[in-house]
Amino acid sequence: MLLVADNLQIINREIARAVAARDPGPIRELALRCRAAGAQAIDVNCGPMPRDPEGNTGFLMQTVRAAIDVPLLIDTANPAATAAGLRAGGPGVLINGFSLEPRRCTSMLQLARDHGADLICFLLHSDGRVPADLQERLQLAVEVFEAATAAGVEPRQLIFDPIVVPLTWDDGTFQARAVLDTILRLPDLLGVPVRTIAGLSNLTSGPAPAEKKMLLESAYCGMLAGAGLDLLLCNVLHDATVRTARACERLSGGGVFSWAEL
Amino acid sequence: MLLVADNLQIINREIARAVAARDPGPIRELALRCRAAGAQAIDVNCGPMPRDPEGNTGFLMQTVRAAIDVPLLIDTANPAATAAGLRAGGPGVLINGFSLEPRRCTSMLQLARDHGADLICFLLHSDGRVPADLQERLQLAVEVFEAATAAGVEPRQLIFDPIVVPLTWDDGTFQARAVLDTILRLPDLLGVPVRTIAGLSNLTSGPAPAEKKMLLESAYCGMLAGAGLDLLLCNVLHDATVRTARACERLSGGGVFSWAEL
Repeated sequence: MLLVADNLQIINREIARAVAARDPGPIRELALRCRAAGAQAIDVNCGPMPRDPEGNTGFLMQTVRAAIDVPLLIDTANPAATAAGLRAGGPGVLINGFSLEPRRCTSMLQLARDHGADLICFLLHSDGRVPADLQERLQLAVEVFEAATAAGVEPRQLIFDPIVVPLTWDDGTFQARAVLDTILRLPDLLGVPVRTIAGLSNLTSGPAPAEKKMLLESAYCGMLAGAGLDLLLCNVLHDATVRTARACERLSGGGVFSWAEL
Repeated sequence: MLLVADNLQIINREIARAVAARDPGPIRELALRCRAAGAQAIDVNCGPMPRDPEGNTGFLMQTVRAAIDVPLLIDTANPAATAAGLRAGGPGVLINGFSLEPRRCTSMLQLARDHGADLICFLLHSDGRVPADLQERLQLAVEVFEAATAAGVEPRQLIFDPIVVPLTWDDGTFQARAVLDTILRLPDLLGVPVRTIAGLSNLTSGPAPAEKKMLLESAYCGMLAGAGLDLLLCNVLHDATVRTARACERLSGGGVFSWAEL
């Protein structure tokens, strides 16, 4: 399970200021902190950028790329900004992401095909709604798979995101189980090996005691790993979550076990 | 995921002394501690008893049953002692367990059928060897399933134990993954819903820093829950493991989420 940092977000005021001032310092520093904490990839969340989305995205991606050499996820709903991010980030950039929403649809597929980039596919309805249950997620996965492959994107480029929602939603625990079941069922459903990603921070969003949030994050991290998740998008500055994710990695069949490596 | 305490073992010197002296005090006290810590069932591990296995098992089971009202697992390879435990424990006793080893084979099946008791089935070779990988486990599951149902035991009585081994074995991490994959694959393989159990304490047996053991236990607990495990056999006095198991339970689709219940 690859650990992807969700820490680099333009809604972070310091990052927004650094981007506006074209100051690489704070961006570079946060990227280095994430890598030191265990990030194996970084999601560069460009958010909605009313002004100069292409220039800002390019600067962000270029700055992170110059600081660390790990895969980067370019995370914006704006196709032009995504294209700028792909150019600035060079090889090893994943597109985050595609869904059946019309604004994301055709252009994101074209970018993935033309750049040979991996593509994160949100299992969301075309109107942006979160699916109600496992069945809707599986149905959406089939539609997304067909749309992507019809557009010339290879199955091996696809990474499905079954959409983690806050536990405090009325059906929060039901949805948490549906996400796990989607990860379990996707390979059989599609008949080809496809990868999955889940955004852990969503699970505990909202006000709550930090200790309880950490417990839930660690527990769900293990559950996602047990269900076969490939990429975990999370706050890598949460030490307990990172330690759990690393332990899961050691428990997933990789090589000879050693207590010293924990 | 039901939490089953593995704490009550006759190799515990205090318990052995209490059984020999027919002193219910220490047994009762440990059973109550387990329940207070979160045990939803208790494994009564009678081990090898050279003298009076039936009398000792009967006393143990009777004492625990008088102390707490939760399902009990009667855990011995001795069929006569198992029969005594079933009589002493009354309804709600599970047999732990059956395998293709000749000494456990026919008589354990007959006991399960005659008492209508749930039966834990070890996925072990007939010579007691641990299976080498997922494929051997699945093959053993089919053989066990056929032997049990041919003897008149219902599929709903069966609980499969894919055999957790110490991580420090040469193939320890490979086996940890194979156990998870067995849990994932069993329902499709057998075509009927069957339950699974795993013994968590085995994973970290041997000398190692307690903190690292706890991290691995919690992480694997989450992975087992994510793969769909039904019963977790563990040391319920390990607080982190119990808290993780409870969090997993809350994350498994049961009802409305509340921070207060964590």
